[in-house]
Amino acid sequence: MKSYQHLKEIFQQLAHLRHVSSICHWDEAVMMPSGGGQARAEALATLHTLQHKLLTDPQVKNSLEEAKKATLTSVWDQANLKWMEDEYLKASCLPADLVQRSQLAFIRCEQAWRSLRAENNWRDFLPLLTENVRLVREAAHIKADVFKISPYDSLIDDYSPGLSQKIIDPVFARLKEFLPGFIKKVMAEQEKPLSISGHFPIEKQKQLGSQLMRIIGFDFNHGRLDVSHHPFCGGVPQDVRITTRYNESEWVSASMGICHETGHALYERGLPAEWLDQPVGTALGMALHESQSLLIEMQACRSREFIGFLSTLVEEYLGHHPHFSAENLHRYYTYVNPGLIRVDADEVCYPLHVILRYEIEKKLIAGEVSCEDLPDLWYESMQNFFGLGTREDYCNGVMQDVHWPSGAFGYFPAYSFGSIIAAQLFQTAIKRHNAIIPELSQGNFKTLVQWLRDNIHSRGRLLSMNDLLVQATGQPLSADYFMNHLQTRYLR
Amino acid sequence: MKSYQHLKEIFQQLAHLRHVSSICHWDEAVMMPSGGGQARAEALATLHTLQHKLLTDPQVKNSLEEAKKATLTSVWDQANLKWMEDEYLKASCLPADLVQRSQLAFIRCEQAWRSLRAENNWRDFLPLLTENVRLVREAAHIKADVFKISPYDSLIDDYSPGLSQKIIDPVFARLKEFLPGFIKKVMAEQEKPLSISGHFPIEKQKQLGSQLMRIIGFDFNHGRLDVSHHPFCGGVPQDVRITTRYNESEWVSASMGICHETGHALYERGLPAEWLDQPVGTALGMALHESQSLLIEMQACRSREFIGFLSTLVEEYLGHHPHFSAENLHRYYTYVNPGLIRVDADEVCYPLHVILRYEIEKKLIAGEVSCEDLPDLWYESMQNFFGLGTREDYCNGVMQDVHWPSGAFGYFPAYSFGSIIAAQLFQTAIKRHNAIIPELSQGNFKTLVQWLRDNIHSRGRLLSMNDLLVQATGQPLSADYFMNHLQTRYLR
Repeated sequence: MKSYQHLKEIFQQLAHLRHVSSICHWDEAVMMPSGGGQARAEALATLHTLQHKLLTDPQVKNSLEEAKKATLTSVWDQANLKWMEDEYLKASCLPADLVQRSQLAFIRCEQAWRSLRAENNWRDFLPLLTENVRLVREAAHIKADVFKISPYDSLIDDYSPGLSQKIIDPVFARLKEFLPGFIKKVMAEQEKPLSISGHFPIEKQKQLGSQLMRIIGFDFNHGRLDVSHHPFCGGVPQDVRITTRYNESEWVSASMGICHETGHALYERGLPAEWLDQPVGTALGMALHESQSLLIEMQACRSREFIGFLSTLVEEYLGHHPHFSAENLHRYYTYVNPGLIRVDADEVCYPLHVILRYEIEKKLIAGEVSCEDLPDLWYESMQNFFGLGTREDYCNGVMQDVHWPSGAFGYFPAYSFGSIIAAQLFQTAIKRHNAIIPELSQGNFKTLVQWLRDNIHSRGRLLSMNDLLVQATGQPLSADYFMNHLQTRYLR
Repeated sequence: MKSYQHLKEIFQQLAHLRHVSSICHWDEAVMMPSGGGQARAEALATLHTLQHKLLTDPQVKNSLEEAKKATLTSVWDQANLKWMEDEYLKASCLPADLVQRSQLAFIRCEQAWRSLRAENNWRDFLPLLTENVRLVREAAHIKADVFKISPYDSLIDDYSPGLSQKIIDPVFARLKEFLPGFIKKVMAEQEKPLSISGHFPIEKQKQLGSQLMRIIGFDFNHGRLDVSHHPFCGGVPQDVRITTRYNESEWVSASMGICHETGHALYERGLPAEWLDQPVGTALGMALHESQSLLIEMQACRSREFIGFLSTLVEEYLGHHPHFSAENLHRYYTYVNPGLIRVDADEVCYPLHVILRYEIEKKLIAGEVSCEDLPDLWYESMQNFFGLGTREDYCNGVMQDVHWPSGAFGYFPAYSFGSIIAAQLFQTAIKRHNAIIPELSQGNFKTLVQWLRDNIHSRGRLLSMNDLLVQATGQPLSADYFMNHLQTRYLR
């Protein structure tokens, strides 16, 4: 017990350091003048080194071994100890030298990527990306040995504990089979929405966004809304900060972005209060995090019922517009339109963008293909899935995402499993609570959010992702709900 | 040399941790929603503990002893090593237990003070303040032994290295003798300014304030202007952040507050770039810091020449007003009007408020009076200096400042020595550069600020305060300049 107490103190300190690090990262993206960047990067690197030192101290290893011998009676403590060890192993298994070389390579590649992408310059990007892949593979092989899983699974596990190729492969096979034909069918049947553009002052859009946040359940006493180049959810559970970006001629992306980030924020804010400074009190990975944002944005806010409410709310904040009818807004929000860019993709096309990347990553990490092959692989998949793209349009192809330049391999599946889990949770919630759908049509999220708080948010990392889904929905992870959702929403 | 290099690495880490701490403190005052306060306090307390641990590590002591044996050739390194030792001794000489008990007592007292002051409740405040004084005296006696100075000097030195009772006493004796009569004389001769109130939208005031900052020399690529309850200058030298607060019916306090904080910001921004992560590259204490803000605000921005320029600028931003003439603004800016509150005091009355507090602190730390005696001592001095105040008006008397409730004894002299040094520096600068005064009348601070950069800001902590003044002005610290300034400005 004494060694477990000691571990709790260390992990509390780590949580406190993550708090200041998180606020400084938020500040960097939202508040910092550009001249402060160099000093900030150095300060945060030192903080990161100290965190790593604290976590990988030999005393932590000893305490872990001691604590595992004792019996912890509370299931929370048991799970907490398990995640402590997971965090320790992930941090300590890699040689410091490899970690440092990787960080340098990723920063160099990401910085170069910003301009090389704009120049469509694949030739100069290739050696940098190759180096990233080399370093990521080296780390993945070490982690694979330690955790007794495959190298690519060790990368997926870094972002989404509980996901693995064994779970992903059959689901993606099914979606890959189903989606291309489905997309054609939807496109043949759907009606094009009428234009809803106009002039919408940022201040008004901000008021609309804040009102949407309040409606969904965001507590401004414990959070903020700001502007940043890339929208994100940051801060800490006691002070969750989301961002968006505005465009004066179009209000849909900003407001749906706000709904999306509010979903992330509710998850963070709903984590178990008494465990926030321990590993078991943190969010259960990126797939589940995405499920919370996509549940709010895609399932609830783009539902026909909520759009009925929204069409009135929008006129209240942005003024009358001939095409703000519920019918036309719904058409706008559910319009399927295949394109080259993942982040602009609609809900139906999105999984194919993810599958394309997943298949490439898998082969890259397995050493079956090299970076030189990527443009061709990319081109072939885009042709197969959408019949789109040209071979040399690198900037709108293989160079479009920040993930690979920044070393984030294994992240992409989280997006689509977020959609899949969101559908499973939402359909369970509305089946259990008849009130949810009528409430949404009145702009009331109370029953839905309470269900999420009770069944997901407040559980932290107590259960594995699959056990959490079984406990919340009575079933393990299943893509049926997502397929069902697509059929219902897109083919009437 | 190796041990000095080791020390440089440790102090660089400390500077990086101060960076994140400083940004989080700024965030707390400017951005944080109130619900985030508890978690922030805990996170910053952990960060502070880690900083203290890093600084007081036995290895630091060993390296200091080793480094002192070697010969450092650069004067910067020599001064740096001296300040490293000073910082180490100040942090390590106090028992951890005393530090912790003091911090708790100060937080408790300051929090209680906020409501007790509003209630004019001296009775419940007294035991808390008594405990603060007891703890401060205990620490002061320990530091006095280590640094071979008197206990009260050890407190003054914490805030303003280079200041001591030996320097302060004769200067304050002279001001105490001179000011009460001088104030009467000024009040008899001065003309009351015509009202300049009106309606001035905050956005316009902010634009005016930003323009003033640019004019003075603030670089928005390395800093920000925001709003907070108490105006301050925070952030880091590479990203200096000042705040103000606005009042829609009155623009003078916000804009002069901005000028004041811009003076602080220029000092931070002008510190030697290559030494920013070392003790020798930091500001030389609060007296000098106040001198930089007061030089900009009181000497430059309230000069007749600059006010001529300002009267045009204000009309440009805030619109025409019948009483915005240079003559009336100057009258407004230099109007002497004794009152009970230090922070509202004009330049002429201010030193007497400081002297009153200094005399009480001196006796408290020496154990010659107890906290029970403070209301009477306060009342007597207020009567002697201004003929103002009543015995039981605690909230506008002994309970008005945050310093004592928060444990900051020894700070007050910094304010008046800031005024004194500002006068000495400004008069030297305008004597050496004839361009400064005509430039100010055109809203041009270039020559003045360049002189400050060369002679003060870029020197960091290379020299002692007195040596710095000798090098900049050819003379040690002298109150003559300040007395001369008052005579010239207030008695025509």
